[in-house]
Amino acid sequence: MYRVYGDMLSGNCYKIKMLMEFLHIDHEWIHIDILSGKTKTPEFISMNRNTQIPVLQIEETDFLTESNAILNYLAEGTRYLPDSGLSRAKVLQWQFFEQYSHEPYIAVARYINKYLGLPQDKLQEYQSKQLGGHKALAVMEDQLSKSSYFVGHSLTIADISLYAYTHVSHEGGFDLSKYTHIQRWLKQVEEESNYVSMGHHYAYENP
Amino acid sequence: MYRVYGDMLSGNCYKIKMLMEFLHIDHEWIHIDILSGKTKTPEFISMNRNTQIPVLQIEETDFLTESNAILNYLAEGTRYLPDSGLSRAKVLQWQFFEQYSHEPYIAVARYINKYLGLPQDKLQEYQSKQLGGHKALAVMEDQLSKSSYFVGHSLTIADISLYAYTHVSHEGGFDLSKYTHIQRWLKQVEEESNYVSMGHHYAYENP
Repeated sequence: MYRVYGDMLSGNCYKIKMLMEFLHIDHEWIHIDILSGKTKTPEFISMNRNTQIPVLQIEETDFLTESNAILNYLAEGTRYLPDSGLSRAKVLQWQFFEQYSHEPYIAVARYINKYLGLPQDKLQEYQSKQLGGHKALAVMEDQLSKSSYFVGHSLTIADISLYAYTHVSHEGGFDLSKYTHIQRWLKQVEEESNYVSMGHHYAYENP
Repeated sequence: MYRVYGDMLSGNCYKIKMLMEFLHIDHEWIHIDILSGKTKTPEFISMNRNTQIPVLQIEETDFLTESNAILNYLAEGTRYLPDSGLSRAKVLQWQFFEQYSHEPYIAVARYINKYLGLPQDKLQEYQSKQLGGHKALAVMEDQLSKSSYFVGHSLTIADISLYAYTHVSHEGGFDLSKYTHIQRWLKQVEEESNYVSMGHHYAYENP
């Protein structure tokens, strides 16, 4: 059985939870508290030298890191990842966009606001994240004005990757009211069978 | 024939050039100067709304962006990308590591130093990039002490992704002398048949 080391309130970890629920993949979830340094222990470092969550444990000594790599591994051969060709590459295109142009702005603004309580010495960094975040949202809005999901007309792991932090972007101070296509798409993702919210499982598995 | 829009001295673009040469893929290279705003024109935006290079033009209206997505597309079915399973996912793991934990430090430090001439008002940002850059190099050194390449014992597109900015990291102020495994690996990549240096093609194609 797969074991996932992560924090359900981290978007990068929640991506894995979403896909595992969509695909009914049996797994054990081990809660890792980043704020208290649990990714810096020798045990954790032996799983991921880069000290980040999530980590997927496949076999006793086989670990896979990086949320989007884990999604690709788990989605192989399912309807959430095209077999080959340009559609498959487009899924990756959007996932690399997410990690480079979206997450560093939207997730970090959320982290500073929600987890650190927007302290005075982080105010400038928080504000600097708004511009990049809105740039990423505009790129998403443009694509979603042309196709119902990011790659074609059904949900792929590209949507899961981008949904994770977009749907809680208000916690980072982002107002989505002018992004009407993004709003439509968020609802579509939430209508997928076996959708789980970020908070539900957190409360359930970490009482 | 493929068309690549890029700048040969950008590591993200050079990745594509390296793989195309390894695979003898015929292509046309269109030089795009980022510093003079050539990614912000309406023509460029119609190819990549996210205003970044490289862009791969596949057909008249088919464009693929994000360097690592392009590498995956071009490497499919070749010896540079495992067919399936954990090895294939590990290639992606290292590519997402590159875009999130490596490029934003090493490439940005290089950009500030080499292209902007390390101006006084960027000094603090430049210095803040050193810590993250060395953290990424330490993660690489650890992996290369365990395997000859990033994924197993032959060169994959994960190596191409990480080679691009690592081999010019001295231009961002990084001293690689203590990373002996990285030094060994850089030489291995350079011994690959049909290897092209970053500078050679720049001088050749952009006289």
